[in-house]
Amino acid sequence: MFPAIPDEQFQRGDVPMTKQEIRVFVMAHAMIKPTDIVWDVGAGTGSLSIESALRAVQGHVYAMDGDAGACELVRLNAAHFNVSNISVLQNKAPMAMEGLPDPDVVFVGGSGGNLAAILSESARRLRPNGRLIVTAVLVETLYETLQFADGLEGFQVESCGLQVTRIQPIAKRHMFRALNSVYIVICRKGECV
Amino acid sequence: MFPAIPDEQFQRGDVPMTKQEIRVFVMAHAMIKPTDIVWDVGAGTGSLSIESALRAVQGHVYAMDGDAGACELVRLNAAHFNVSNISVLQNKAPMAMEGLPDPDVVFVGGSGGNLAAILSESARRLRPNGRLIVTAVLVETLYETLQFADGLEGFQVESCGLQVTRIQPIAKRHMFRALNSVYIVICRKGECV
Amino acid sequence: MFPAIPDEQFQRGDVPMTKQEIRVFVMAHAMIKPTDIVWDVGAGTGSLSIESALRAVQGHVYAMDGDAGACELVRLNAAHFNVSNISVLQNKAPMAMEGLPDPDVVFVGGSGGNLAAILSESARRLRPNGRLIVTAVLVETLYETLQFADGLEGFQVESCGLQVTRIQPIAKRHMFRALNSVYIVICRKGECV
Amino acid sequence: MFPAIPDEQFQRGDVPMTKQEIRVFVMAHAMIKPTDIVWDVGAGTGSLSIESALRAVQGHVYAMDGDAGACELVRLNAAHFNVSNISVLQNKAPMAMEGLPDPDVVFVGGSGGNLAAILSESARRLRPNGRLIVTAVLVETLYETLQFADGLEGFQVESCGLQVTRIQPIAKRHMFRALNSVYIVICRKGECV
Repeated sequence: MFPAIPDEQFQRGDVPMTKQEIRVFVMAHAMIKPTDIVWDVGAGTGSLSIESALRAVQGHVYAMDGDAGACELVRLNAAHFNVSNISVLQNKAPMAMEGLPDPDVVFVGGSGGNLAAILSESARRLRPNGRLIVTAVLVETLYETLQFADGLEGFQVESCGLQVTRIQPIAKRHMFRALNSVYIVICRKGECV
Repeated sequence: MFPAIPDEQFQRGDVPMTKQEIRVFVMAHAMIKPTDIVWDVGAGTGSLSIESALRAVQGHVYAMDGDAGACELVRLNAAHFNVSNISVLQNKAPMAMEGLPDPDVVFVGGSGGNLAAILSESARRLRPNGRLIVTAVLVETLYETLQFADGLEGFQVESCGLQVTRIQPIAKRHMFRALNSVYIVICRKGECV
Repeated sequence: MFPAIPDEQFQRGDVPMTKQEIRVFVMAHAMIKPTDIVWDVGAGTGSLSIESALRAVQGHVYAMDGDAGACELVRLNAAHFNVSNISVLQNKAPMAMEGLPDPDVVFVGGSGGNLAAILSESARRLRPNGRLIVTAVLVETLYETLQFADGLEGFQVESCGLQVTRIQPIAKRHMFRALNSVYIVICRKGECV
Repeated sequence: MFPAIPDEQFQRGDVPMTKQEIRVFVMAHAMIKPTDIVWDVGAGTGSLSIESALRAVQGHVYAMDGDAGACELVRLNAAHFNVSNISVLQNKAPMAMEGLPDPDVVFVGGSGGNLAAILSESARRLRPNGRLIVTAVLVETLYETLQFADGLEGFQVESCGLQVTRIQPIAKRHMFRALNSVYIVICRKGECV
């Protein structure tokens, strides 16, 4: 009944997580179809992987993260949400991408220092009408992704920052509580229909 | 191929319009099904009405606005997007709501000074599992909607502000361009499933 | 050498604190002169009281807070910054204001439920050309202060929200880290010169 | 009686202008003393030059802009505010800096493509305890300035983004109106006192 899973339903550890309001926006742009192949690079807690697996019910999600703790969290969350169409790959991208089926959707939430290679390999492998979506929480990720996107041919690119302020009830009153800004760069392969 | 229609595809006049990034978020929360009945109160340019009509293909959208120019814009945009499941009611809410079928989704984007009556009538008429979504661009609308929502029984309420910064390409560089803040209050009827 | 004291130089406990970037903005608007009388209502950690005392070197600062822990923190911070021109009043405003000399500047950062009375008493007692500055972190405080300010005669009012994003260095990169939004309402007594 | 000059008091043309709320923050960080030498690189309308000239009454402000229209606006605004301690240099930085006295404060609001050279020459020429303040409205300016600042020795650096939402009165109500985000990087020469 929700457009995205509430944050507190995920196991989180101290791994960074894409917050619910951002996931609503990112998932709306991902437009995942039931048969889609999804790559989640720098999967973290796996929140985008889980959201994707719940939509790509006949497809498959490949969650990649170089960190063992993150991979364990993705597995825990997959079990908790009872999704079996996720494979967790404990390996850094772009190496982890080798041998995987080409994706309809790629999320890049972390790069482990290989951002340029991850972006170009993702764009190259992306299927027609595929979507590459980068969520940037670092100035450097935003800058490098925009540089990369400017050089892409055959893609449509748009980008924005989202500053979400949650309204938190507190003793019958309502407090402004900011989430950290996230910049989102969306690259769509092929012409607009 | 887009999660929401680009702003420039709408006829706009000088009527305020819910911007694309906000519509992505609002429509994701509306979760409109093909058979849904949608009320759009203070329809403005009709951008949410059009988005809704494209999703509720076997349902119907009732766009209400007290302003003749706004109603004309909604009709122009409905014709442009070739949707026929929209009725435009040039009448102020809540009067305009009389005689309409009960809604699955109500959007409130403008109130013409009748916010309290609009909200309570919307909540009363809303079908089980219905969603009432208020987009507030005034301090007063945010305050009054939160007051109202606190008194609701049998609803789940959440609320946040969205500050969108578009990244605008400009001579091979990228400029931060803010949209106005919008606060969004979402009231879901019935228990969470 | 700083326009405002860095946050980490204050003793904080778990009392909320006006962050440095907000203090820079608030203190610039307060325009405190060496002989000014300053009231700090809902003083919290006393960060604005300390900043004020360092500027009103021949004046005096009255820090009011109903909470004993907050008052203790103000005293600790006054000692730490070696300012003696602060009186800490553990009493709720507006009662705490009785008997004090009329202020040139009033800060309202917390109201303990007495906002309307605090604002009207502050406006009444304010000296010619005095400044009343409210920092609102609740929707209700923002709404009620704007309502109050609209009814003021002989004042100039302006208001804005500040969403600060700190750029935090992290492993040779730079992360966007949001502070909570604060709305600031500034009421200046008398005509603009 | 204001901490910064209201926007509407400046002649603006269609040259971009540092808005009042941002000037309040920037000028607070600049901490200009009466005898200071100020360089304003990419002066635009000259709003920061005028604010500086009003504070550096025994000092001098050098406003540099490669654009003839901008230079004309700075001259108009200097005449309007009756300040004579401004020299307008229609020349691009860093060339325009040659032969000028070393600055206490440098503002960089535009770079004409020479950002790296402007920053390094500014840092080199800055007097002890001097302040170099960059206002970035482009992703590239933010990124390049942070890269530059990371390599500086003998400076203290801090940085933040400011998203200002003006509260605009409109028919007895109050509308949220966003200004564009500006990122501000402040480099202080020498140790903190």
